[in-house]
Amino acid sequence: MTGPTAPGTFDTVEYLARLARAQSALNAEGIDALLLTGDADIRYFSGFLTRFWESPTRPWYLIVPATGLPTAVIPQIGVDLMARTWITDIRPWPAPHPTEDGTALLADALRPHSRVATPMETGTHLRAPLAEWATLNGRLPNPVRSDGGLMRRLRQIKSPAEVARIEATCTGAARAFTRLPGAIAAGDPLSTVFRRFQILLLEEGADWVPYLAGAASPGGYADVISPADGRRLTEGDVLMLDTGAIRDGYFCDFNRNFCVGQPDGALRDDHARLIDATHAGFDALRPGQTAEAVFATMDKILTGGATTTGRYGHGLGLHLTEPPSLMRGDTTVLEPGMVLTLEPVLERRPGVTLVHEENVVITETGARWLTPPAGPDLTVIPA
Amino acid sequence: MTGPTAPGTFDTVEYLARLARAQSALNAEGIDALLLTGDADIRYFSGFLTRFWESPTRPWYLIVPATGLPTAVIPQIGVDLMARTWITDIRPWPAPHPTEDGTALLADALRPHSRVATPMETGTHLRAPLAEWATLNGRLPNPVRSDGGLMRRLRQIKSPAEVARIEATCTGAARAFTRLPGAIAAGDPLSTVFRRFQILLLEEGADWVPYLAGAASPGGYADVISPADGRRLTEGDVLMLDTGAIRDGYFCDFNRNFCVGQPDGALRDDHARLIDATHAGFDALRPGQTAEAVFATMDKILTGGATTTGRYGHGLGLHLTEPPSLMRGDTTVLEPGMVLTLEPVLERRPGVTLVHEENVVITETGARWLTPPAGPDLTVIPA
Repeated sequence: MTGPTAPGTFDTVEYLARLARAQSALNAEGIDALLLTGDADIRYFSGFLTRFWESPTRPWYLIVPATGLPTAVIPQIGVDLMARTWITDIRPWPAPHPTEDGTALLADALRPHSRVATPMETGTHLRAPLAEWATLNGRLPNPVRSDGGLMRRLRQIKSPAEVARIEATCTGAARAFTRLPGAIAAGDPLSTVFRRFQILLLEEGADWVPYLAGAASPGGYADVISPADGRRLTEGDVLMLDTGAIRDGYFCDFNRNFCVGQPDGALRDDHARLIDATHAGFDALRPGQTAEAVFATMDKILTGGATTTGRYGHGLGLHLTEPPSLMRGDTTVLEPGMVLTLEPVLERRPGVTLVHEENVVITETGARWLTPPAGPDLTVIPA
Repeated sequence: MTGPTAPGTFDTVEYLARLARAQSALNAEGIDALLLTGDADIRYFSGFLTRFWESPTRPWYLIVPATGLPTAVIPQIGVDLMARTWITDIRPWPAPHPTEDGTALLADALRPHSRVATPMETGTHLRAPLAEWATLNGRLPNPVRSDGGLMRRLRQIKSPAEVARIEATCTGAARAFTRLPGAIAAGDPLSTVFRRFQILLLEEGADWVPYLAGAASPGGYADVISPADGRRLTEGDVLMLDTGAIRDGYFCDFNRNFCVGQPDGALRDDHARLIDATHAGFDALRPGQTAEAVFATMDKILTGGATTTGRYGHGLGLHLTEPPSLMRGDTTVLEPGMVLTLEPVLERRPGVTLVHEENVVITETGARWLTPPAGPDLTVIPA
């Protein structure tokens, strides 16, 4: 190592346990090596934490063999940081390179393995140029195959150390939500509200804020993925902020709703019903339950069971959103260690919805809140 | 449209101009349609700005035909926001879907086009699952081919409206850098320094801060991509912060170096030489010059021309890092409207470097600074 341990890494024993689980699955499925290209997958095995993934210029590769230790095939610029993780086999090239961007080196490193797999399923991406990928596949004895969801299944079950990190992120963000009404006022543009909330998140321990979306409009909102605009908070608005902050490399993903001025009775009732649905979902969580059954439990309260599309929650961890999805058709069976969001949606009238979101972990007997669950009453921002 | 214009969009005339340039290139190269999957490429033509790309769960597609208007094939959750851009042909599906995540709909939309291309070169990624990609290619009359760098060439030349946005982002971040010495002190952990600087960036108008890296160690640093650790600022440290903030959808990417306590003579001289190299690079910028020639000009001052790998700058805009690269072997010819970083690296001794970075735009006759260029003297943080 060329300096202190890389920021955000766990003890090596954590990575050895992950490697052992992975190798057991690889051997069971007849795969010789996993080839990983994305931030979260590479970090899962290595602890390599950097915001440099924001730069799309260079590909990065980690090979996880069915026996032995992982090999990092990475741009030279990452060697110092990777050398401060527990990974010892690091093979760099001077990236970016206009004609040969690491693919020959990667093909060499994969040569001992005849059956190589990579994540190819829903929710995964190849974080490498397609042209290099085609070249690589042409140089291997067999084309790279799908891992059949193996990485998904590994990452879906969080270790106690991972759960503790997610909970710490949630706890800090919850403090920021508590402080928000004191930091904004009616008349503020939404862009100011978004900036102030990000400042509160940083003050409360977030390392950075990769995700913030929200809306403010009368009685509810249509759209939950927009960035801020210049609209000013107005009496009667429901303000919703939904954040994915990062602390020590792990996300939270939850929201809160606020009312500008006192909510009318119908809005009060609808928000309380949304919270009821959240609690009903929570009560349904336990090992052996399916993702779609939890959806159905919440939807019974929200629509009497009429909803056929959309989802009411998802996995969470190294990514803002991970499998499974709490929706019809997702038959994933819940297991202890899964971290999920509960995210019911109540449609008040066409184009006017309320969304609520909390984070939980599945335990041996049920579930535990990672966010301090919101009560039935909307928090009021004085008009 | 279901609400006000989507945040961050330009006037429609800007998108029509981009479309006209693209269609001219598509027709010249015999491509019937571009298929785009990534945030920046889709936003380039549509104006669709959201932080929801942080969620890897769903693929998104935009088809840019050689004649006619673009078609968005997107998850239902994005319809409201996309409908507030100038795009009118929006075809949604209820994503995520466990078995058929939009690919049939996409194949239908591509049916009128026999030669479809997508970016496949260095610095590009397919932001869609490989399994869906294979299914798609199996349903098309011809597999999707490489765009041969067409998107790169389009995005590389910024319009005046884009340059103005990048400059506004740079100007706000420069104010944050100016305020930083008053917001931190010797003894602060680097994690606190990173949080305070992000707060300053938000206060100075950044919408969010996708990228911050840096280091603090005696006389220089080895690693420029690390997140913060708990190391406390100590007399003799050089602190470097490198930020990619976003404002109205466009990045800045520049850094500043600070010395904790007074720098010694050698450090003063080395920083001054780094700034000299930056100015020499600036003076070499003009239409017709090559990227590698600008590198060579800077490297002459830094090493007498001995450097064979690495790069001293790159493109900038919708992404933190874009082509071209100021490095040996990149023969890209500079053109007016290119926005670049100048980013020379001075190695003081093995493992101890100084890096400086500014942002510029190529003009008809030379270049113009988008960041207020730093002077030769390191800013001092009292020890």
